[in-house]
Amino acid sequence: MNKNKKSPQTVEFKNKPKIIGNYSIVGPKEGAGNFGEYFDYVMKSDLFGEKTYERAERKMVETALVGAIDRAMLTPRDISLLLAGDLLNQIISSSYAARSFDMPYLGLFGACSTMAESLAIGASLVDGGYFKTIACSTVSHFSTAERQFRFPLELGNQRPPTSQWTATAAGCSILSLEGSGPVITKATFGKVTDFGIKDVNNMGAAMAPAAMGTLVRHFEDTNSKPEDYDLIVTGDLGKLGSEILIDLMEDKGYKLGINYCDCGQMMFRRKQETLMGASGCGCSASILNSFLLKKIKDGTYKKILFMATGALLSTTSSQQGDSVPGIAHAVVIEKE
Amino acid sequence: MNKNKKSPQTVEFKNKPKIIGNYSIVGPKEGAGNFGEYFDYVMKSDLFGEKTYERAERKMVETALVGAIDRAMLTPRDISLLLAGDLLNQIISSSYAARSFDMPYLGLFGACSTMAESLAIGASLVDGGYFKTIACSTVSHFSTAERQFRFPLELGNQRPPTSQWTATAAGCSILSLEGSGPVITKATFGKVTDFGIKDVNNMGAAMAPAAMGTLVRHFEDTNSKPEDYDLIVTGDLGKLGSEILIDLMEDKGYKLGINYCDCGQMMFRRKQETLMGASGCGCSASILNSFLLKKIKDGTYKKILFMATGALLSTTSSQQGDSVPGIAHAVVIEKE
Repeated sequence: MNKNKKSPQTVEFKNKPKIIGNYSIVGPKEGAGNFGEYFDYVMKSDLFGEKTYERAERKMVETALVGAIDRAMLTPRDISLLLAGDLLNQIISSSYAARSFDMPYLGLFGACSTMAESLAIGASLVDGGYFKTIACSTVSHFSTAERQFRFPLELGNQRPPTSQWTATAAGCSILSLEGSGPVITKATFGKVTDFGIKDVNNMGAAMAPAAMGTLVRHFEDTNSKPEDYDLIVTGDLGKLGSEILIDLMEDKGYKLGINYCDCGQMMFRRKQETLMGASGCGCSASILNSFLLKKIKDGTYKKILFMATGALLSTTSSQQGDSVPGIAHAVVIEKE
Repeated sequence: MNKNKKSPQTVEFKNKPKIIGNYSIVGPKEGAGNFGEYFDYVMKSDLFGEKTYERAERKMVETALVGAIDRAMLTPRDISLLLAGDLLNQIISSSYAARSFDMPYLGLFGACSTMAESLAIGASLVDGGYFKTIACSTVSHFSTAERQFRFPLELGNQRPPTSQWTATAAGCSILSLEGSGPVITKATFGKVTDFGIKDVNNMGAAMAPAAMGTLVRHFEDTNSKPEDYDLIVTGDLGKLGSEILIDLMEDKGYKLGINYCDCGQMMFRRKQETLMGASGCGCSASILNSFLLKKIKDGTYKKILFMATGALLSTTSSQQGDSVPGIAHAVVIEKE
């Protein structure tokens, strides 16, 4: 059902690309969180044996990529394309990691929406027969993000109540028409939405309107409703952002019930004191590529809507007084 | 011919997506260069009526997008997807421009390879029937790039002999299976290549190996040779980089003749004193979306290979002692 004759934002994948391999790697704090037992690799230190946090973040991408390729029972030579992005300026974590692998590479930037962006593009390119096997990857690191976007780590700055904690985490999925695994059946491509939030410590509120927009268009385009999914999971709206999304959706006539949750809200335990919860590309990427895909494979969930959300700001745009635009892309993942 | 049984990096578009509209906008210095008469819009000032150079760059994206849509005889509502990226941290020029338009958006980062990256992805998605009409856009601005990557403009720093001048320029192409215009028939997706160049003022040398890699694979994958093209045009290798590419290709057994040229080398006149020539995403984007497409339409060129090249560094990676990886993506554009 397509109200108001808007052009559709959702595409359907007739050949049903499969996620034939997946891997997650997180930092020690994330490992001590709610999903600790599900992650493939928990680092002992945020530096991961490197000299800088930036190099640690890069090594996390490499580790996730190698791990996912291994789980797919392939070798790096079998990967026909790498789609990756991250939060650092000029997405250096992804580009420098791609340097270590002999595979074509397309860099993406969707802030924390990158996991869904890469899966949506990757599923299209695999479904259309343009590439045989595509790796989709993203990463974030608390220490690199904090010092790039906010304050030097050494400052020990106090965090406002609405702030979220950038997850030190990476995830990678391998897509192919051959092999076995959960299938990506649809993708909804989001629009940039800006409701005028200027507080860079309130990303949840900045991203919630974009999440609402993509979610409503997904339900309209596919003639579905929230109850049609075993789980609707957003990326990193956090506690406040996900509550705002529930309110916004209610205004649009959709009730998000107990089948709705948010990776940012769920990642850490309450006693870990991360205020509104986790954020960062790696938050939803690591939970998707561990807990969520495992629960789809074992039949707990038959059909989920995975929607990663991103805040498209930079320090320059903030300093020049611009508000924070958000974006959200969604993919439907089903049991094979 | 596929030597060494490497998996192909080139895809062919059976439905031949057309470039049904295109637009270019440049700054005054670029307007005074070799292609001045071909650009659709030459700004009177680099500030373009805005308070900051960053906002001017954003307005250039908006202007190029509106212009290209107009040339395609469409309205913004007809665009089903926007693919865009730029050089600024978190690609704010593209994301903030996308905010002004009610269309799905995917952010890309391929540094100065972005025009080819967006055309390669866009042609795949249009060819496969996933989206009806896709806008591909990129931009760069001398003043925003200079102060982000190098030195404050006020410093008036001396530029080393190997340096290039970031073009203040934007280009946009509209892709569709319907309508009329030059067709994109093939795309070769590049790999990240690093030959260890650490001089951030020698981007041409850093990008040339990636350009060589993509070019060789393109000829191998498509069983073609340089003479099969009326024009082989690289993005922004500049004078030194394009000479290195000619040498590297000769070592591989390919002779790039008078049908080879480089947008960076050609953009400015000698008396404009830009040393190795122009660079920046907008350099090749503006020349493609003005001179090159015009010359394909009027039959001067029947078949060109457009290959944009990117240097995937950030100030952080440079400061941490990393070398500069390059990437290059290529598309074949033919007369309809």
